[in-house]
Amino acid sequence: MENGLTVLKVGGSLLENDEYIKKLARFTSKIKGHKIIVHGGGSKTTEVSKMMGITPKMIDGRRVTDADTLDAATMVYAGLYNKKVVSIFQKYDCLSLGMSGADLNSIRSKKRPVDSIDYGYVGDIENINVTAIRMLLKMGVIPIFCAITHDNDGQLLNTNADTIATLIATQMTDRYDSVRLIFFMDRAGVMMDPDDDSTLIETLDFKTYKNLKMDSVITLGMIPKLDNAFYALIKGVKEVWITGLPFVNDPENLKGTRIFE
Amino acid sequence: MENGLTVLKVGGSLLENDEYIKKLARFTSKIKGHKIIVHGGGSKTTEVSKMMGITPKMIDGRRVTDADTLDAATMVYAGLYNKKVVSIFQKYDCLSLGMSGADLNSIRSKKRPVDSIDYGYVGDIENINVTAIRMLLKMGVIPIFCAITHDNDGQLLNTNADTIATLIATQMTDRYDSVRLIFFMDRAGVMMDPDDDSTLIETLDFKTYKNLKMDSVITLGMIPKLDNAFYALIKGVKEVWITGLPFVNDPENLKGTRIFE
Repeated sequence: MENGLTVLKVGGSLLENDEYIKKLARFTSKIKGHKIIVHGGGSKTTEVSKMMGITPKMIDGRRVTDADTLDAATMVYAGLYNKKVVSIFQKYDCLSLGMSGADLNSIRSKKRPVDSIDYGYVGDIENINVTAIRMLLKMGVIPIFCAITHDNDGQLLNTNADTIATLIATQMTDRYDSVRLIFFMDRAGVMMDPDDDSTLIETLDFKTYKNLKMDSVITLGMIPKLDNAFYALIKGVKEVWITGLPFVNDPENLKGTRIFE
Repeated sequence: MENGLTVLKVGGSLLENDEYIKKLARFTSKIKGHKIIVHGGGSKTTEVSKMMGITPKMIDGRRVTDADTLDAATMVYAGLYNKKVVSIFQKYDCLSLGMSGADLNSIRSKKRPVDSIDYGYVGDIENINVTAIRMLLKMGVIPIFCAITHDNDGQLLNTNADTIATLIATQMTDRYDSVRLIFFMDRAGVMMDPDDDSTLIETLDFKTYKNLKMDSVITLGMIPKLDNAFYALIKGVKEVWITGLPFVNDPENLKGTRIFE
């Protein structure tokens, strides 16, 4: 058993700004113990897709990942953003290694079965290669995962970054005294009114979450994120936070919204 | 000292075909000892650049890497191709890890100084992190490098893949009894007449090379490749080959053009 592990998920759209990546690197360098970063791709994928003449397909507000969109996502997530983050992290003495789930066979997923809706090349996680990831962590390496996984049969798959971060964190709970999971957004945390920082909810338990969902205070994209957050707690992750830079800058003194069971 | 290391460089345009990547994986799985793959990006970068509205700039027939072109190259080399190769390799039980030179700070380069010509974000290699690469090899991992390096100060740089493969091979000669460097092209090797397979030059020494250059039999892109090949021999690489799939299929019985001092 080792001391602490921090899994930090960063929204892809935040990485559009090099200054943000530098702040993230400084924050990460101050985290004690082992650390893992997971990032998505955000709006740049849509931008690149459009420039390449790919028309984004949506069903019920969810993007459909056809073969061209998967190529664009792989280019943006695993190429552009992942390598930009790694290269800036090295400058701040964070020995990092950018990875997809295909690398070291670290995250194996299964193409989502087609029921009524075919989401295309989207993968649901089946296995996290804890041994390979631990091997890197023990060498002092910071793995930086993008939201691309694979099926171990030659097919890359687009996978939700929140879910990747959550499952990595939960799979590590029997190896560390304490696992922390932090979701970085473009705001200070979960708000009663998203436009008013003073309405930050500092602690959020499951009962309150259910009520806020019923009252439509918590909606849309926040729901799967919070479902992941509560799942992580149930599975033994010690601390779960929803917050963001620059609202926090000391990893040993987190602020934002802390999630409780 | 360990037994053998094979460094295999593959032209990026070959990776456009998934069937080729499968053949490459099967070939690689048969190589005994440690192995490293290095690949470029080829014509797909130009295609993606064009689709994104980036006009390729050329000076004296050489591409100039401006910021947009570097982004396109990072997307294609480190994203699309690198992850496609890794994911197909895993299927063939080649435990592989896709990397740029930024990852693990494995290849540090310096932006080429502007003399008369500004080639833009092009890097000349300054350091190969032999310790980090050896650590991966000892764990049974096949590092798969794309032709993107970094300056360890937050800047990614486009770097020639032949040179990366050559310098990795030469830097490893004091750690292995025998280092082999293989350049995979779309042909069986160096030819007297590129359109006629029967004119394959099976062995090429430096004197013959100089004569063939003078007679303009060896021209253009082959010259820097062969300069790298001879440099590798001088620096202690045991075997250097220029060949290609499917002209060879047994790594213990290589065919094509073998280079001698």
